[in-house]
Amino acid sequence: MKISEIGGEFAFIKRVTGEAGTDPALVQGVGDDCAVIDCGGSGYLLVTVDMMVENTHFSLDWYSPCQLGAKLMEVNVSDIVSMGGTPRWAFISLALKPDTPVEFMDEFYRGLYWSAARHGVVLAGGDTTRGREMVLNLALAGDVEKKGVRLRSGARPGELICVTGTLGKSEAGLRLLMDGKRDGYLSGYLEPRCRLASEGRAIAAYAGAMIDVSDGLASEVGHICERSGTGARVDRDAIPLSPGTRDAAREVGDDPYDYALYGGEDFELVFSIAPERREPLARVFTDFTVVGEVLPKERGIIMTAGERTIDLKGGYDHFGK
Amino acid sequence: MKISEIGGEFAFIKRVTGEAGTDPALVQGVGDDCAVIDCGGSGYLLVTVDMMVENTHFSLDWYSPCQLGAKLMEVNVSDIVSMGGTPRWAFISLALKPDTPVEFMDEFYRGLYWSAARHGVVLAGGDTTRGREMVLNLALAGDVEKKGVRLRSGARPGELICVTGTLGKSEAGLRLLMDGKRDGYLSGYLEPRCRLASEGRAIAAYAGAMIDVSDGLASEVGHICERSGTGARVDRDAIPLSPGTRDAAREVGDDPYDYALYGGEDFELVFSIAPERREPLARVFTDFTVVGEVLPKERGIIMTAGERTIDLKGGYDHFGK
Repeated sequence: MKISEIGGEFAFIKRVTGEAGTDPALVQGVGDDCAVIDCGGSGYLLVTVDMMVENTHFSLDWYSPCQLGAKLMEVNVSDIVSMGGTPRWAFISLALKPDTPVEFMDEFYRGLYWSAARHGVVLAGGDTTRGREMVLNLALAGDVEKKGVRLRSGARPGELICVTGTLGKSEAGLRLLMDGKRDGYLSGYLEPRCRLASEGRAIAAYAGAMIDVSDGLASEVGHICERSGTGARVDRDAIPLSPGTRDAAREVGDDPYDYALYGGEDFELVFSIAPERREPLARVFTDFTVVGEVLPKERGIIMTAGERTIDLKGGYDHFGK
Repeated sequence: MKISEIGGEFAFIKRVTGEAGTDPALVQGVGDDCAVIDCGGSGYLLVTVDMMVENTHFSLDWYSPCQLGAKLMEVNVSDIVSMGGTPRWAFISLALKPDTPVEFMDEFYRGLYWSAARHGVVLAGGDTTRGREMVLNLALAGDVEKKGVRLRSGARPGELICVTGTLGKSEAGLRLLMDGKRDGYLSGYLEPRCRLASEGRAIAAYAGAMIDVSDGLASEVGHICERSGTGARVDRDAIPLSPGTRDAAREVGDDPYDYALYGGEDFELVFSIAPERREPLARVFTDFTVVGEVLPKERGIIMTAGERTIDLKGGYDHFGK
């Protein structure tokens, strides 16, 4: 039986994490952007891992090594920031093809260290080995004040659902590249920049639940609802799209909202917030948009678009379909 | 320029970790079995990562999925134990071929969880994706009392060099497999078992430097000497070999000491200890052998074998030769 036949990546993870074990110091294990660990200090330790595989996650025809290095760091930092935390210590594992030029890796590390410096992260360890295709894995640890940690499970009915920045710009770049374009609005895909810890902390002080956009808004809202035991309604027309994303979708012949909902890799933040906290947040952080509301579970997870109401399906699944 | 042309894996790591950054909380970064981090609690946090790549580190013709899962855990636990620490929280990243059967992965996780339970480790997070060959990465965090941490840099001239258990048994199994054997003394390679944290802690209470055997005794002694600023002498005939390792080497036509010195993956512990502490240690832990002594740096890193004295060369290098 193939993994796709049991329901794909998320179903597989549920199947194999049944025996993960328990530990009183593990405040949050599998099931959020990071694990949350109580190491006995004043805050919590946060840990996340992300793996990027050549030909699955990236093509070397499209990415410069410098862009790859920066992206590997940004995708992981985003997970720490989405918990309200501060990224600190990175551990890199690389499988490199035997003929990988040193100059390529110098450029890769230039991008990695550029992003690390932007976020105040130090490289604390790693493992380098060989493979038939390039595999890049980063484990990233950070810290967070105990009262500052925000989980996917923190949403309550009546809260607003908000997103930072704009969505769909990564998918827009990918679609342009797949369409044969080699310039234009590609940076959202090739050079994604996650939010800074200072921004995540500012939001965390007011938010209920928080998550980053890895798999698309539909998937992230679904994760929040699943972990919070709620439903949700997303107002499609409120989803913030950049002019570049709209232009790219028009050029390729796609619906730009599909990019935002199912594209992923925007590394913006999705959070829930009590209505009365929206204004106080806006006094310290402005770059967010209200796109919906948290509903009681029995109302389901829906999207309204004008007069229509539709079910909001899950995001990209590495083993689905 | 290829990585092998600049001197292989270790030279590459030195080249790319020049800009790794600094952080006062990072007690030990790149250059030991684990990073050592001060998170503000009473002890230190230890973190290690190891990546295993199909066809580089393992062949699916030889390993059962259950053996693979257990080995992935054991190789990482070994790094924590070699610092005197206790393994706690594991984060797994998997790149799987799209046609990987679920039953294969069930068996893989059975092995992983078996080993995790043996060491008291919980699985706290991960990432699952696709690749053309199987890549298994584990990031493992643990803790250690501040005074209990043992680094590679802790050796002093005059100390004895000791190893736990026997060496060469992993290479013995690999050589038998490469020679076409499908049964016999294979468990050292297919089912390596690292030392328990209780053993590592018992040794750490008396040891100067400590390291685990990943790349072979010659390489590990070299690492201790490099980080401690010392030389060393290994007495070849004192290296403990199991009868099975001797038999396997005879069968294949090899020198069993080469397995111990350059084979690696035995996941035993190598440590230095002041001569007067040898007896006190032996009262709490007996399964070790004195194989040499720490020398002043100017004496070099040598091996004596009967009347002969030879230079001790480095261990296996993923990009060397």
